[in-house]
Amino acid sequence: MPNITFLPANVTVVADQDENLLRAAMRAGVHINSSCGGAGVCNKCRILLERGQVQGEALPEGGWKACATFPVSDVVVRVPVESEMDRKVLRRPTAGKAASWIKAQDEVISWKLHPAVRKHVISLPQPSIQDSASDLDRLKREVVQGRLQAISLEVDNQVLFNLPESVRSNDWRVTVSLMEGAKKDVRRLIRVEPGDTTDQHLAVAVDIGTTTVSAQLVDLRNGEVLGEASNYNPQISYGEDIISRIEFARKEEGLKTLQKKIIECLNGLIEELFSDTGREKDALSFITIAANTVMIHLFLGLDTRFLRTQPYTPVATQFPPVRAIESGINVPEHVRMFLGPCVASYVGADIVAGVVGVGLNHHPELTLFIDIGTNGEIVLGNQDWMACAACSAGPAFEGGGIKQGMRATTGAVEVVHIHPETFEPMVLTIGGRKAKGICGSGIISLLAGLFMAGVLDQQGKFYNDLGTERVRLGRDGWEYVLIEAESTSIGQDIVFTEADIENLIRAKGAMFAGYYTLLESVGMGFEDLERVILAGNFGSYLDLDQAITIGLLPDIPRDRFFFAGNSSLLGAKASAVSWPVTKELYEVARMMTHFDLSDSPRFMEHYVSCLFLPHTDQRLFPSVRLD
Amino acid sequence: MPNITFLPANVTVVADQDENLLRAAMRAGVHINSSCGGAGVCNKCRILLERGQVQGEALPEGGWKACATFPVSDVVVRVPVESEMDRKVLRRPTAGKAASWIKAQDEVISWKLHPAVRKHVISLPQPSIQDSASDLDRLKREVVQGRLQAISLEVDNQVLFNLPESVRSNDWRVTVSLMEGAKKDVRRLIRVEPGDTTDQHLAVAVDIGTTTVSAQLVDLRNGEVLGEASNYNPQISYGEDIISRIEFARKEEGLKTLQKKIIECLNGLIEELFSDTGREKDALSFITIAANTVMIHLFLGLDTRFLRTQPYTPVATQFPPVRAIESGINVPEHVRMFLGPCVASYVGADIVAGVVGVGLNHHPELTLFIDIGTNGEIVLGNQDWMACAACSAGPAFEGGGIKQGMRATTGAVEVVHIHPETFEPMVLTIGGRKAKGICGSGIISLLAGLFMAGVLDQQGKFYNDLGTERVRLGRDGWEYVLIEAESTSIGQDIVFTEADIENLIRAKGAMFAGYYTLLESVGMGFEDLERVILAGNFGSYLDLDQAITIGLLPDIPRDRFFFAGNSSLLGAKASAVSWPVTKELYEVARMMTHFDLSDSPRFMEHYVSCLFLPHTDQRLFPSVRLD
Repeated sequence: MPNITFLPANVTVVADQDENLLRAAMRAGVHINSSCGGAGVCNKCRILLERGQVQGEALPEGGWKACATFPVSDVVVRVPVESEMDRKVLRRPTAGKAASWIKAQDEVISWKLHPAVRKHVISLPQPSIQDSASDLDRLKREVVQGRLQAISLEVDNQVLFNLPESVRSNDWRVTVSLMEGAKKDVRRLIRVEPGDTTDQHLAVAVDIGTTTVSAQLVDLRNGEVLGEASNYNPQISYGEDIISRIEFARKEEGLKTLQKKIIECLNGLIEELFSDTGREKDALSFITIAANTVMIHLFLGLDTRFLRTQPYTPVATQFPPVRAIESGINVPEHVRMFLGPCVASYVGADIVAGVVGVGLNHHPELTLFIDIGTNGEIVLGNQDWMACAACSAGPAFEGGGIKQGMRATTGAVEVVHIHPETFEPMVLTIGGRKAKGICGSGIISLLAGLFMAGVLDQQGKFYNDLGTERVRLGRDGWEYVLIEAESTSIGQDIVFTEADIENLIRAKGAMFAGYYTLLESVGMGFEDLERVILAGNFGSYLDLDQAITIGLLPDIPRDRFFFAGNSSLLGAKASAVSWPVTKELYEVARMMTHFDLSDSPRFMEHYVSCLFLPHTDQRLFPSVRLD
Repeated sequence: MPNITFLPANVTVVADQDENLLRAAMRAGVHINSSCGGAGVCNKCRILLERGQVQGEALPEGGWKACATFPVSDVVVRVPVESEMDRKVLRRPTAGKAASWIKAQDEVISWKLHPAVRKHVISLPQPSIQDSASDLDRLKREVVQGRLQAISLEVDNQVLFNLPESVRSNDWRVTVSLMEGAKKDVRRLIRVEPGDTTDQHLAVAVDIGTTTVSAQLVDLRNGEVLGEASNYNPQISYGEDIISRIEFARKEEGLKTLQKKIIECLNGLIEELFSDTGREKDALSFITIAANTVMIHLFLGLDTRFLRTQPYTPVATQFPPVRAIESGINVPEHVRMFLGPCVASYVGADIVAGVVGVGLNHHPELTLFIDIGTNGEIVLGNQDWMACAACSAGPAFEGGGIKQGMRATTGAVEVVHIHPETFEPMVLTIGGRKAKGICGSGIISLLAGLFMAGVLDQQGKFYNDLGTERVRLGRDGWEYVLIEAESTSIGQDIVFTEADIENLIRAKGAMFAGYYTLLESVGMGFEDLERVILAGNFGSYLDLDQAITIGLLPDIPRDRFFFAGNSSLLGAKASAVSWPVTKELYEVARMMTHFDLSDSPRFMEHYVSCLFLPHTDQRLFPSVRLD
């Protein structure tokens, strides 16, 4: 790939595949004004070509539109005076994003292949007058006396319905599906099929998030993911966050409605997985589900009232495997559903699955596992011990409670830089489309950018004497105009208000106070952290420096940060592939010490100290230099 | 009670409560002609009062109608010349009926009270910030750590739905229902109710017979039977016997229809039990069911095809307890259903329950257990070993395949004596109503009577030169006219045909050949039998001498015979009251050695020898004297 050198900063980066010059500049830490996010409409992102060849849109006034121009050879481009800064480049080249944990840790994706349900082909002796044992006893004899891994065998009554036909239709050769259970050496016979069907053996792994539901179809012969599907959690129409869903569930038919919605959603995803991959549902053996405690309660139709109020008691935290059709899942009768174990009302099976998915329980390094989702859960520990807590961070980092916040889809502002002298923004949107709103990473980027450019003070209030029209008194108080109406797809200015900032500071404050309290409670400090693993898709987009600048992440060496993507789904998949992993879920849930931060005076103290950018105690953020 | 002396025989009996003189005479072995069964219409049962006082119907020609007359004081009555016999009394006073096994064996009705599901009241500590365990964990802790009999606890997911409400609505005091399982020290939590509900703890015990379905409501606090209900098995409309039901089940929707019918029937009986006793269904904890193997298959909707043909393999012989609603039983969700274990296709859970019900497995005496039902099953053994077999006897003794056979209900001829000189009958019907037909005990009584009176030869053919019009050539061959049309309620002669007799001889031959083969196969003979227990309601009506006379029962001392009534229901009830008894069912099913008589040449030989009255080998029946 060609080199791109930006002048006057004299910064060179290697071009990425299909990356336009605007994106390359952002990556290089070079500011170029741009409002429309790369949609090609604001015409602000002009650059001048000094050497080499580009392909793209030339501007009538000379130069090229950076957001629509790509290098063909090594190029040298100059950022024109309207975008140029005195300091030539951003404060420093950004540390960029966290490394992929999955790539760093090959072993996590090579779980020992040993699913909870296994298929075995057996041949039965034909019955005779001398041996007229029942069909079931005949089968049991082969399984148990033949020591097909089982010392004792439990049997689903449902197996009996087709048993006479199944054993006889392929000359007494059948495939049995044996399920592992809580007790060693006990197996449960859940299915008998005529002939050899061992090549038809699939599982579906599911993560039910408050916002998004994701599912993977896994081939249990080799652990391969055959397909993936995801959708918004349709319960969103009844409440964006967990608390509003619990409130809705209290209404007449509320709980039933929410349950119905999530089951419909899951059924839709399963249909999609099978139709996309051209596989038969009949090949499905079981489903593994990870989800937070509230989502599991709503999925099962359990009363969520007491999850809402102190002392926050769930109905249950462990759920024995049941037949999926009993929960309304539209799959064959034999299909079992494994729901992961939860720790507490606000530390659910998603976190446990995430921790096991990333293998935190297999490493000696002190690790902080962070899921910045709707709620904000954290786990601190290693293979020997774990402490966990929920931070009640709220959905601000998912765009919730932010005036023009939105989810990370096409048209969302995903990264921003603010010119420290002109206060003009450099904006990139997902898909390079006209902006609709600002997603999580964009919000962090914007907050950090405004703060670093000196538009905001440490309390998150706007300086209103900067001489820029972008800071103005709007309907909701002081605000920064990120994109003018004409460059958006929504026909109105995209702004960022002091109220938004207040919400964000509270949210990041809750997270940081959470890490601090957990560390402190085990007599440790941030310097002891050997790894920080960011769960959720969020983590892969997050600019580490920006997140540290606003005090969302601790200020430790950047190479200790990793992102794990949807670690809950990763854990659900690992659990589908490997029964030992499923057992680990229970072990990890058991070993986690849960701290109820809502009841911790230390947490409250820390929280109050965190309501600054980045923090009241500047010593905690040595790398964040305020000029 | 007054004495009744019959002249000229000079036999005295003590009157029974509400017993008329005709019944007393039958009991005393005194013949009095009577056709209408005691309905008061034939006016043949005239007797003359010689001393004492009676109340009843005097006849215009003098004397009293025996069937409508009762003694008020000690009486002496004379049987007039038209009824009198040369030999004055019947061959000998009948040995009467078998003794009640239940009365003889007090222990069988005092099973240790320890039902499979037990209720316990526990108080839970309230949750707090320091102890915010889930409601379920809180409960488990009390059950398991409190060592409420359980070392480990499995939990029905269904329990979770009302759990938060249940634990909180009575100040954290609840009643838990714990179910025993196959594994020691493992209990299953099937129900949690607020407060103390230990006084609401019921079971229903059921026997599903081919002909009749019976159920009892049992109070599990004390083992008391609160109510009983029974009805015909509605599957009868689709086939009188097992084989015809299996045939019907092969038809399109046939199996489903039969299943639906029996479930409707059971639901009806359960409704009846609860409405009759005024108890709430909510107090029901579980149901125990005994039934033959085919009935269990039809009840569960299992394929019966392979039960019909050699080598007669059932789908299964053991069925783990399931929730009753899963089978369509209309009871609360928590209610479990325990189906007894079967031995083979034609030795079912009814026999196992019967054997355990009568305690055969607790006694050292060599016992022959006989169930003369639709099929005819026999068990030989004691506490140490058991052999069992089905005899394919057919339903003749239940009135099936007998021209005017009927079930033992009002209007059925239940006992008969034939005058050895005039060949006139003395007939009693159930309820003293005009006869509709002949039930099992009447059939045996009639066959024995005709044989002993010299109306039949040893091959069961009529002597047609006896000079009585009662023996005549009817439409179906030679027959005996038991009751003339005008004395019946059906407006036609009630007759007994040679074809009927042939069926009966085959049926009793199959039974007897069965006993003989089983005894022989263990190197024993009839003289070794210490007890014979007759199962089924049949046994209590059976006249032992008559049954021995026709060769249905072995000719051994009469005091070795006992009747047990519906021993299958008895076993189901014992199993409801006592979990140890339920476990005995499985032990007994396992210890029974099953002989497939259909494959035994010795059985065929014995069978052929049995096609005589009483038997080809007269030495086997020393007490049956043919003059």
